[in-house]
Amino acid sequence: MSPASQAPGKTRTENLAEWAANLKFIDLPPDVVQKTKDFFLDWLGCTIAGRHHPAVAAMARFAAQMGPSNGNSELVDGALTFSTSPAFASLINGASSHVVEQDDLHNRSIMHPATVIYPAALALAQEVDASGKEFIAACVVGYEVGCRVGEYLGKSHYERFHTTATGGVVGVAAAVAHLLRLDAEQTLSSMGTAGTQAAGLWQFLIDATHSKQVHTGKACFDGIFAAYSARDGLLGPRDILEGSRAMGIALVPGTPNPEAIDWDLGMDFAILRSSFKWNASCRHTHPSVDALLSLMHKHGVAFDDIDSVVARTYQAALNVLGLSGDGETVHQSKFSMGLVLAVAAKKGQAMITDFTEDDLGDSSLRDFQKRVSMEYDAEIDSRFPGKWQGTVIVTTRSGQQFTESVEFAKGDPELPLSREELERKIRALATYGGFTDSDRVNQLIARAWNLDTERHVKGFVF
Amino acid sequence: MSPASQAPGKTRTENLAEWAANLKFIDLPPDVVQKTKDFFLDWLGCTIAGRHHPAVAAMARFAAQMGPSNGNSELVDGALTFSTSPAFASLINGASSHVVEQDDLHNRSIMHPATVIYPAALALAQEVDASGKEFIAACVVGYEVGCRVGEYLGKSHYERFHTTATGGVVGVAAAVAHLLRLDAEQTLSSMGTAGTQAAGLWQFLIDATHSKQVHTGKACFDGIFAAYSARDGLLGPRDILEGSRAMGIALVPGTPNPEAIDWDLGMDFAILRSSFKWNASCRHTHPSVDALLSLMHKHGVAFDDIDSVVARTYQAALNVLGLSGDGETVHQSKFSMGLVLAVAAKKGQAMITDFTEDDLGDSSLRDFQKRVSMEYDAEIDSRFPGKWQGTVIVTTRSGQQFTESVEFAKGDPELPLSREELERKIRALATYGGFTDSDRVNQLIARAWNLDTERHVKGFVF
Repeated sequence: MSPASQAPGKTRTENLAEWAANLKFIDLPPDVVQKTKDFFLDWLGCTIAGRHHPAVAAMARFAAQMGPSNGNSELVDGALTFSTSPAFASLINGASSHVVEQDDLHNRSIMHPATVIYPAALALAQEVDASGKEFIAACVVGYEVGCRVGEYLGKSHYERFHTTATGGVVGVAAAVAHLLRLDAEQTLSSMGTAGTQAAGLWQFLIDATHSKQVHTGKACFDGIFAAYSARDGLLGPRDILEGSRAMGIALVPGTPNPEAIDWDLGMDFAILRSSFKWNASCRHTHPSVDALLSLMHKHGVAFDDIDSVVARTYQAALNVLGLSGDGETVHQSKFSMGLVLAVAAKKGQAMITDFTEDDLGDSSLRDFQKRVSMEYDAEIDSRFPGKWQGTVIVTTRSGQQFTESVEFAKGDPELPLSREELERKIRALATYGGFTDSDRVNQLIARAWNLDTERHVKGFVF
Repeated sequence: MSPASQAPGKTRTENLAEWAANLKFIDLPPDVVQKTKDFFLDWLGCTIAGRHHPAVAAMARFAAQMGPSNGNSELVDGALTFSTSPAFASLINGASSHVVEQDDLHNRSIMHPATVIYPAALALAQEVDASGKEFIAACVVGYEVGCRVGEYLGKSHYERFHTTATGGVVGVAAAVAHLLRLDAEQTLSSMGTAGTQAAGLWQFLIDATHSKQVHTGKACFDGIFAAYSARDGLLGPRDILEGSRAMGIALVPGTPNPEAIDWDLGMDFAILRSSFKWNASCRHTHPSVDALLSLMHKHGVAFDDIDSVVARTYQAALNVLGLSGDGETVHQSKFSMGLVLAVAAKKGQAMITDFTEDDLGDSSLRDFQKRVSMEYDAEIDSRFPGKWQGTVIVTTRSGQQFTESVEFAKGDPELPLSREELERKIRALATYGGFTDSDRVNQLIARAWNLDTERHVKGFVF
């Protein structure tokens, strides 16, 4: 780390809180503002796409029973015709945006920041009537804090915990603190109270249950709770990251990465290092999907030509992808490397509309799936999570063998989506969510592109 | 474990959920019913005593801003003149009841069940208008599930996590599921969704911040969320305890105790194994306090006679009591073995009114404190947490040495409080909380003793 980045006598956690409290919109480089708008649009699409999941319905019912009957914060799904308080609105929007596996990814921290930061910041911005600029600044704060906490907790944490929730809740607290205009001390308290609530286990992957949406929705709720209570005098632990009884000890079986907390703060931005998901499957399959499609294109190999595929990958991918069995549900199927590669090879892409109930019973896909194997690659693993690489080795029925590696997946910061591609993705997500008013989608897209000039951030409702 | 206790083909977690769903009031032995009433009264006293803590005020403000403006669930503190939904009422009552370190303790699980189970079950019982009997049955379920989860997670978990919250949230979910009349499958889902939210770190002990109340209040809120969402179709992981990515792996650095999950279910009851706290200090100091007072009484040793005290104890006590420094606040002072023994020796007891701001600056206490040391005792440690024992060795200024050991602290199941002692404790707690209407206290005490004959459990408001 740069020795200059740590102020004398301050902990790294204090440095991070101070940066978060003091950031202003005018300090943001133009590409940071643009990316914040891009990911906001991407998040809106994911939110409408996921609205029919049973977890979202259950959480909306909880909000209706436990929350107020009206409030300033809106639900992105216009069919849910109530407004509520920020904590409950973000609970529902946060759950909905993490259903279809299309939300963004910050590679180094192995977390999905959009699905926790945007719902909380949006609900709060509506509550305090913040401008588009203030909203953007708060989102940048949330991304930065959440991703830095996730990167600090590291790979060994991710083996046991859903980092999107555990890093996310701290990021949410910082973003909300920013919108509440809390000072550095109160922001530190917010982060402390958030971190002591950090939770989210992978057990749900094993039986395809619904905790993934619980984790994101609750990270929003809990982070809002943390910031509000800090404002109102509840003290959070001052060093919830590096303290001797803090997250870095209790939630990290291996070694955390302390320099991630405040290295290069304000010089680099987490939101610039986040990736769009182009494919609709688990992000750990993307390098293999892209490599396979590239290989098939390059060598003129068709679905029916393929005898077997070996996907060489990193350990975390083997861990996560090994938990969902053969893919008995559409959601699980996106976590089966075999089925994902089968879908991609057969359809030429793996977008949201390419994973269907019908595919689960397609014998040609199921047969292909059995001929895919995963292998650990030590070199690839050594670069993860800095780089999420993949290599596929295809053997054809005629006995030829081809190999293709990808260093970056489509949507990575190095291979960003074009504006046209992003709009195409949003339209597909809205369609998938059963929303057919294309004029309305176009309006929302246009507003998202102009977010930094909007006086209010209300009305982002499909 | 008894092999008969595990049904063939079922996981232990399934056995526990099934037992929880099926328990009925008529199955409860009379002593279980009595203890549930005793601990309810004890809990009521703790709740009114803790009402002025800043964490409680901040959480009440959060409830007022994020929750509904009215509801069926009451706040024990009558000065908080609003009613709200069960999730928010239990958030506030749960926080308030864990302020003064006088709530009960289940020794084997190292957790405080009352402070999470009663607030959630009371709020729910008011919401669904349950009878006293139904409320009691739900509390017994909550104690049983929460304490078994805590005991399963074990000593190594407790070194890093506040078990009251992590076991507690699962117990809350089971108690609430019981009041919602969920079946075994839905109860299992409730427990799963609760367990994936389990959180609570000890970092707050280091700087005397306010997470302890966050942990208990949020365990109530999160457990209610889990049960409601399970009822409404949200699936929780089926084996959140023993699954390969579940609590027993992620939250347990050492070895969990699987047999604790379902051993002797329905034959023994956790609530019968819980202790009242007689002294107002951290429970880990109680054996030493009792041993010291007994020794002083037996040998006629006075405060001023004592040159030094060695308190021999188990490792968990050394860990927890080592975190609060010298005791700079009243709350921290209850975690300093030296200051606690000083107070007990000087005042002849260590009840709630014996720890004051003035004492923090009392040089005779501070001087005594410096002459107290703690020592690890391997034999005592080997029995913990089955038994919470302590030995003190006192050297007098005249050079005499006395030793006293206690096997059980006052208030343990083996040394229960009499009804008169319990009432005395409640009155002291109410006084400490600034509640002076003794007629009203007497009314509430009388109602608590008759809880099993009450048609409604409303009106437990000071």
